[in-house]
Amino acid sequence: MGEERGGGDVDGAGEERRYHVDGELVPASDATVSVEDRGFAYGDAAFETLRAYGGDVFRWDDHAARLADTCETLGLDHGLADSDLKARIDETLAANDLADAYVKLSITRGVQPDTLDPGPEVDHTVVVIAKPLLRGGVDSAPVHDGPAALQTTKTRKPSSRALPADAKTHNYLNGILARLELRVTGADEALMLDPEGNVAEGATSNLFFADGTALKTPSLGGPILPGVTRRTVIEIAGEEGIPVEEGTYAPDAVREADEVFLTNSTWEIRPVETVDGIAVDGDGEGVEGPLTALLSRLFDRRIEERYYDGERL
Amino acid sequence: MGEERGGGDVDGAGEERRYHVDGELVPASDATVSVEDRGFAYGDAAFETLRAYGGDVFRWDDHAARLADTCETLGLDHGLADSDLKARIDETLAANDLADAYVKLSITRGVQPDTLDPGPEVDHTVVVIAKPLLRGGVDSAPVHDGPAALQTTKTRKPSSRALPADAKTHNYLNGILARLELRVTGADEALMLDPEGNVAEGATSNLFFADGTALKTPSLGGPILPGVTRRTVIEIAGEEGIPVEEGTYAPDAVREADEVFLTNSTWEIRPVETVDGIAVDGDGEGVEGPLTALLSRLFDRRIEERYYDGERL
Repeated sequence: MGEERGGGDVDGAGEERRYHVDGELVPASDATVSVEDRGFAYGDAAFETLRAYGGDVFRWDDHAARLADTCETLGLDHGLADSDLKARIDETLAANDLADAYVKLSITRGVQPDTLDPGPEVDHTVVVIAKPLLRGGVDSAPVHDGPAALQTTKTRKPSSRALPADAKTHNYLNGILARLELRVTGADEALMLDPEGNVAEGATSNLFFADGTALKTPSLGGPILPGVTRRTVIEIAGEEGIPVEEGTYAPDAVREADEVFLTNSTWEIRPVETVDGIAVDGDGEGVEGPLTALLSRLFDRRIEERYYDGERL
Repeated sequence: MGEERGGGDVDGAGEERRYHVDGELVPASDATVSVEDRGFAYGDAAFETLRAYGGDVFRWDDHAARLADTCETLGLDHGLADSDLKARIDETLAANDLADAYVKLSITRGVQPDTLDPGPEVDHTVVVIAKPLLRGGVDSAPVHDGPAALQTTKTRKPSSRALPADAKTHNYLNGILARLELRVTGADEALMLDPEGNVAEGATSNLFFADGTALKTPSLGGPILPGVTRRTVIEIAGEEGIPVEEGTYAPDAVREADEVFLTNSTWEIRPVETVDGIAVDGDGEGVEGPLTALLSRLFDRRIEERYYDGERL
């Protein structure tokens, strides 16, 4: 889920950023791929969006495991060790003097001319992009445009028989088509349904809601990306004794919920203000309900402890 | 449907090929796009695959119209005239001294940093690739590897509610996943089904079959690309008084057909030898049934008349 909103302003007007392309650090303006690279021609590439806190990316092992799953789904046997990929991320952060950053790591199947069929030999292209973000942790400012306005879209998630939802690839048009629908309503995230009409996820986020009985989120049995922040939130809720239910839900369950929030690696936990134009106000305590606020606070504490040596605790 | 198989060998070992990128002809090795171009990051791009015969691309108006439809679906308002796009193709053919060629024209939404949502202002990137192909027309050698072995895949076409099938975009993983399944069986084209289990099309081709009553092809009501060669074949059959039926068909109808063939801009008409390992032999007249042979001959004559001044007629 590649949402990098909110980071652009942090950037100074100084030196040109450097990206990691095919094993080398190059100025961003020279960071290119061949027009015959399958990543460009077909979106034939796996990627991860990560957030770095205090110089280190959040839950690298989870991202590396999901990337490996995506590559397996694509039959993309790049042969690179996780440690090699991590080193490229670290080099990119260091080259740009970035501690708090948005990071995107992509692996394409490279240039394999002449047919749609990929050859077994992968001439992979590895790209790492990094951009400054605000500091995370305790008392951090959110890296999003405030509470989200969520709108159900006509564009639905594809069935996993057509495109496996747990593979994070450069085929992202489905989400773009959903976001384009929002131009009419002014909402800023799509509430996308699965082929059966149950709620799935946002265009770049996982969905949670609470209705007084439990914290609920669509189960990974549906066409849902297994988000790393989604997993983190479920873990935190579990530690706090908050009941969590992963299930199958109709859109009305979200529209009628007391609290709704979205998660992704960049936003972390983003409260939802309206669903299909209807205010989410639960018990009238304002935009960010008590459970959302609690989980956000616990999330920030966890980041503070693990990535900033508890500096602000 | 981007299948360029069969053209590579024609190329000499002479000068480096030149491609058209962002308004300029550049050596193929310098033909690149930014790693932040949305065509690379998300497959957020429209394209057409065309075949040039005798220096001119086949049915440009049809390709231009479909490209415009794709761009409309994507909300990609590039503002370029069809004549401008055609000029870039012609310049690319001329720069490479190509009369008979495979051509791929792509328009991406360009670099729009920081969110998945495309901005209304498109900083498009236009790419034209051209590669030599054999001469078409009468007595031409086929530009494919001989009759196809077709195999039904588990990977299905996405519903048009998820990804409109009539939009030809750089999101091509669905077809790649289908082709990957063929590694096990040794087949060379996928018989892809729609979400309901009816036949749709190949990974890069439209499907036709004949059963003694009519020439049949899945209707555009399903998730089918409106192929230019598909339309041409329907026109030719109509002119010859051959009944054509566009409908909804179960896979068994194809498995039991007397003749089966595939079409795309590069292959033109490609006979199918086996479907799911079962030989297509109809009345025992060999791989290419009589209707397929007739339509191929008529297709070649049409090309000869319109693009080679009837030289071989």
